[in-house]
Amino acid sequence: MRVLLIGGTGHVGSAANAALRERNTVTVATRTGDLAVDIMDPQSIEAALERTGMVDAVVVCVGSVPYKPLEDLTREDFLAGVANKVMGQIEVVQRGTRYVADGGSFTLTTGVLAREPIATGVAASVANGAVEAFVMAAAVELPRGIRINAVSPTVLEEATGYHSFFPGFPQAPSSAVGQAYVRSVEGLQTGRVFAV
Amino acid sequence: MRVLLIGGTGHVGSAANAALRERNTVTVATRTGDLAVDIMDPQSIEAALERTGMVDAVVVCVGSVPYKPLEDLTREDFLAGVANKVMGQIEVVQRGTRYVADGGSFTLTTGVLAREPIATGVAASVANGAVEAFVMAAAVELPRGIRINAVSPTVLEEATGYHSFFPGFPQAPSSAVGQAYVRSVEGLQTGRVFAV
Repeated sequence: MRVLLIGGTGHVGSAANAALRERNTVTVATRTGDLAVDIMDPQSIEAALERTGMVDAVVVCVGSVPYKPLEDLTREDFLAGVANKVMGQIEVVQRGTRYVADGGSFTLTTGVLAREPIATGVAASVANGAVEAFVMAAAVELPRGIRINAVSPTVLEEATGYHSFFPGFPQAPSSAVGQAYVRSVEGLQTGRVFAV
Repeated sequence: MRVLLIGGTGHVGSAANAALRERNTVTVATRTGDLAVDIMDPQSIEAALERTGMVDAVVVCVGSVPYKPLEDLTREDFLAGVANKVMGQIEVVQRGTRYVADGGSFTLTTGVLAREPIATGVAASVANGAVEAFVMAAAVELPRGIRINAVSPTVLEEATGYHSFFPGFPQAPSSAVGQAYVRSVEGLQTGRVFAV
């Protein structure tokens, strides 16, 4: 299958890329280069989709959110997370639907903070919860048998810089996270959140 | 207990008000009157909180979201739902914390669309999913033993004007929805979503 992967350079995106490449042709759009995508800029999303053309799957591994203690989180912080991780991914779906083949799929990325809290993680939880609800709801309205799922990874074993923020959380190997993207792209399920 | 109920005139707010009044002193803030609150206007929220003074519980039964087919939902539609139902309720918590007594509580309102989809409901699902994740995450960071829960009602038996949008959905009597608010306000749980 032909896969457009938006954001293939971080820990999660790299894991998705490595796993999906085994049986698919993966085109990677990052922040720079011919297919440059700034997830905050809908026009850059549209341009990357148009340049790539029809695909069987679009996978999104982007999204940043402010981390602060609850009492310090401002309206602007919450809205920044929404603009980036929520609206960025929703824009990919809304603009990308016409570039996805019949029966193709979208796979978005959320994270464990949708279901488990950590200190300073409230804005991230809000963004992840919004995206997971979007996936559940959009699945029943997408046309032409197009599917949509989310992969929701816990902290990655390899992402050692983040481990101290997730004390005692089970860690996932990158390979397991990569396989969740494979399951979404090559499987038949829709409206699902694949927690890893 | 002393309870500030923001939005006590709709079907859900009226149900909360009727149930909470049985054992508590409920002050109701609506869109008009001495305690007028426009959930889109943080200053009006602040003013109502200040005028009411210290309470044991703040209950929010407001939030409107655009309903449109997925393909017609614009960025502005999603953000309108976020500004109203998500940021409106988050502003109440962020600004209201200092007006809530030790061990007091917030109770927010979401809805069945956080977990089940309907046609034209994607923006509502996104907003409800965001609020439920906020509740789960904020519960562990609120100070002084302050609790926070959400009540997530399905369509109400008495709200006959909405029944056709929820074909075959189990309906809840207003009294059951009201009791969920009582459970949140008078109980000890936190970080919970009480589905009715």
